[in-house]
Order: sequence, then structure tokens, then C-alpha cells
Amino acid sequence: MLKLKAQLFCGDEIAMGPGKADLLDAIATHGSISAAGRALGMSYRRAWLLVDTMNRCWAEPLVETAAGGARGGGARVTEAGQAVLAGYRQLESAMAEAGAADRLALERRVRPAPLSS
Amino acid sequence: MLKLKAQLFCGDEIAMGPGKADLLDAIATHGSISAAGRALGMSYRRAWLLVDTMNRCWAEPLVETAAGGARGGGARVTEAGQAVLAGYRQLESAMAEAGAADRLALERRVRPAPLSS
Repeated sequence: MLKLKAQLFCGDEIAMGPGKADLLDAIATHGSISAAGRALGMSYRRAWLLVDTMNRCWAEPLVETAAGGARGGGARVTEAGQAVLAGYRQLESAMAEAGAADRLALERRVRPAPLSS
Repeated sequence: MLKLKAQLFCGDEIAMGPGKADLLDAIATHGSISAAGRALGMSYRRAWLLVDTMNRCWAEPLVETAAGGARGGGARVTEAGQAVLAGYRQLESAMAEAGAADRLALERRVRPAPLSS
């Protein structure tokens, strides 16, 4: 089994990667950072920090939070956020399709499970 | 800046990834596991464990160690190891070339450095 990971950096920070993309998807689905974090088994603090990093790394914010209560106001993925997420998912698909021949050649050689040590 | 990572799994273990590929390259260059580990800033124990995992994960061993002393005998990358390494590097190149348009679109939107928090 092959796992592929794309990380887009902004300076030393990760502007977009698998975890942040999943968080954007979850915010779009659940309409709040706390509910999205819960759905992904992530603390509110961690989810909030990932959103803060994304919003500082891109030319436009990817997530907008509404006013109202400490965690109560809801959040939505902006148009810029939707565009970045779509671009990232396309990049993931393109990577997954790339090098299919190399991939098959490697997978033919790998054991289904390791020998015991 | 975009970082891409491909990890090929064998059961729960990573049969090949960026670190193991670099270690194979270093063993081919330096002719021993200890020298290769040193060149990569890795302990002998860690380098040895990575080699052991690779050798248990692939149909044929990727690294052969020669007899002689605790760490003294030298090591070489087998033909199977050279083939797997070449296939992995090709896969990395194919991934890097994939989705060039998506990648450019994302890179145009990302800031050169994050805003301060």
C-alpha cells in the first residue's frame, strides 16, 4: 500500500497538508471549528491553531468565524478556502495517478507483511 | 515550497520512504551501515533497524552485510536494492511532475512567509 503526502510550506509553517485539508472539509460539513475538530478527534485548541496557521499563510483567509460566544459563532470556509482545498485535492489525485508503472513494479516486489524480526 | 512524500507500506511497517531511500544511497556511497548512518546524522542502531525493516519487507534483501567484526564487515546494496531504489526515485520524480498546474495555482496564493500571530 502506498501513502502519498503533499505539504505546501509558507516559510517554516505548513500552509496546507493532509490534516489541514481534512479540517477544511470538516468545517465545511459541520459549520464550526469545534464540531469539525470533534469529528476528527482533535482538540478545539489544535483545530483552532491549524485554522490560525492557514489564515496567516494564504493571501486571503481560508476560514471565517462569525461573532458570538467563545466557541458559539460558527465558522465557514471562504471562497478562497474552497479554491485552495479543490486545488490541493486535484494535486493529490494527480500525484496518485503519477508513476503508475513505477508503483506497480515496486508493489510487486514488496511482501504482503514483513518477515518477523 | 511543496514537499512530497511517498511511503510504501508492508503491513504496518514502512518498506520504503524518503529516509530509507536516503539510507540506501548512503550505504551505496559509503559501503557500510555505520558510515552511512554517520553521514546522515543517524545512530548506528537506528540505521541498522531501518536496514532490518527493509530486508524483512521486500521479497529479496535490499542490503547485504559482509562478515567481520561487530560493525566492521561493510555492507552493500544488492541488485534488488538498486532496482527498488531506482523505482522509488522514479516514482518521486513522477509525483513531482504531476499536477504542475494545480501546484502553480496553489503556490501563487500562498504567502512567502506567514503573517505573525
